[in-house]
Amino acid sequence: MYREQIKVLDCTIRDGGLINNHDFDRRFVREVYKAISVSGVDYIEVGYKNSKKLFSPKEYGLWKFCDDDEISKVIEGIDSKTKISVMVDIGRVDLDDVKPSSESPVDMIRVAAYVKDIDKAIYMTNHFADKGYETTINIMAISRDRGVELDEAVVQIEKESKTDAVYIVDSFGSLYQEPVEELVKKFKGILKTKEVGFHGHNHQQLAFSNTIEAIIHDANYLDATVYGIGRAAGNCPLELLIGFLKNPKYDIRPVLDLIAKEFIPLRKKIEWGYIIPYAISGMMNEHPRAAMALRNSSKKEDYREFYESLKNTDLD
Amino acid sequence: MYREQIKVLDCTIRDGGLINNHDFDRRFVREVYKAISVSGVDYIEVGYKNSKKLFSPKEYGLWKFCDDDEISKVIEGIDSKTKISVMVDIGRVDLDDVKPSSESPVDMIRVAAYVKDIDKAIYMTNHFADKGYETTINIMAISRDRGVELDEAVVQIEKESKTDAVYIVDSFGSLYQEPVEELVKKFKGILKTKEVGFHGHNHQQLAFSNTIEAIIHDANYLDATVYGIGRAAGNCPLELLIGFLKNPKYDIRPVLDLIAKEFIPLRKKIEWGYIIPYAISGMMNEHPRAAMALRNSSKKEDYREFYESLKNTDLD
Repeated sequence: MYREQIKVLDCTIRDGGLINNHDFDRRFVREVYKAISVSGVDYIEVGYKNSKKLFSPKEYGLWKFCDDDEISKVIEGIDSKTKISVMVDIGRVDLDDVKPSSESPVDMIRVAAYVKDIDKAIYMTNHFADKGYETTINIMAISRDRGVELDEAVVQIEKESKTDAVYIVDSFGSLYQEPVEELVKKFKGILKTKEVGFHGHNHQQLAFSNTIEAIIHDANYLDATVYGIGRAAGNCPLELLIGFLKNPKYDIRPVLDLIAKEFIPLRKKIEWGYIIPYAISGMMNEHPRAAMALRNSSKKEDYREFYESLKNTDLD
Repeated sequence: MYREQIKVLDCTIRDGGLINNHDFDRRFVREVYKAISVSGVDYIEVGYKNSKKLFSPKEYGLWKFCDDDEISKVIEGIDSKTKISVMVDIGRVDLDDVKPSSESPVDMIRVAAYVKDIDKAIYMTNHFADKGYETTINIMAISRDRGVELDEAVVQIEKESKTDAVYIVDSFGSLYQEPVEELVKKFKGILKTKEVGFHGHNHQQLAFSNTIEAIIHDANYLDATVYGIGRAAGNCPLELLIGFLKNPKYDIRPVLDLIAKEFIPLRKKIEWGYIIPYAISGMMNEHPRAAMALRNSSKKEDYREFYESLKNTDLD
């Protein structure tokens, strides 16, 4: 499927960092950056820009903070057209930590926000845009937030924000193709001056198919991760997305090499992918928090008890 | 999604048998049958009915042959409304081996056929229907067979066959939602007196989403397997399908128990699921044969070489 406007963003290090406290070593990040660059992927997101007043560097890895000089170190000397992205959460970034883009290796800043925080997200994207960055607003947990408040938030973004794109984020891995179609059409209808993006989670093995559905209805910003790494069940696998797009500007082979060399061994150390408690969370439209806690307990395969606990919560 | 006409068929033992020479022991098959029965699934397919003149019982397990008395043994004493299905391949079954349905524990016989063998499939389903069985025709490898021959085959089935349903079988795990929509609509347009079925393969993590797509366009016979077991990447996971259908006649909990107790240990012994060479086969619309051979060789993680070999074959 060839469409020139399509941009693929690899968020392997950022979303993958959610399962290892953002503690990828510099060598690993450099290897990922190298492969993503050769594969021709448009953006790579390397982590979150969090304030060190809120989180201690002793407890988290480098990619929880994404200092400019750390980014510069891992990309140094690698020939690349891939742009660098970082993500910020509302209320967790110190705006003064963000230099003008002309002094930073970062090209894009993406603001993750719930519908209730859209005012803040608009303020922040305008601030970053004024500093010269490309920006996006990523509307999280959208499967729980599909009422009129969502429509109003998207209208407000169109009117007030300088952001380049607005993402539909299926944080709970709960959407299937019909709601994705509905949401993308709604966003496209309102956002006349901005692109629409899609970020899927794979709790029910639907991240890739939902990304295809978003493409069919003209979303142009697409998130994916190498071998689907990411929180809980992970994300849309980058290799599948590139295989589907069949756009000559992307080359799947460096990603295949990277999986064989780095991700098969990594998967033996940390867990993501199709795991029943995450599937149950997706079916129930719940945050995977409880499922993640279960997987770290002695009851990790007690699926029925976990299912009943979510089911009964829902009935309260 | 509630639609009374929907029938779910569990083919765990039949398609799973393709990765262990149909050699599940009686205890295991009994446990699966018990759980499937309690979960309210409509059909269970336990294997292939192959002629012992063609395949030796010394080389294959019981479920390559599906003798009536072996089926009777594993279901004995279990209260169940789940009907029993077996599959036959064209040219591999001895029709005289098949007793009238009134003398057999089997309720349904499914004929697997390529488009080129539709004449034979029609003859066989009519033969089995005359013996009192429900029947289906499963059109294999349909992603390679989408030309006018397919249309003609479906028209011929509608006119000449007594079969109850005709399945779209994505043997190569190559379809995504748009071709599934096209195929189901085509089948529904032609088949006025028969149901349409869908059997997905999960090479590109699309078996479940394609099954949803088939449901949206009114396919009513749906195949799935416990924990997605099946040849190569496996099939649509039954637990996801039941979770999606939300039909009160199905209970997901016995399936969850079965996964925890039997399938998590089994997965450590035999391989299926999201594995890169199968994903590549799916992207390339190829039979997973070469990928299966690769996984049994010392080059099992040589993805790039495998990709190049399929790519260059295609260019020939």
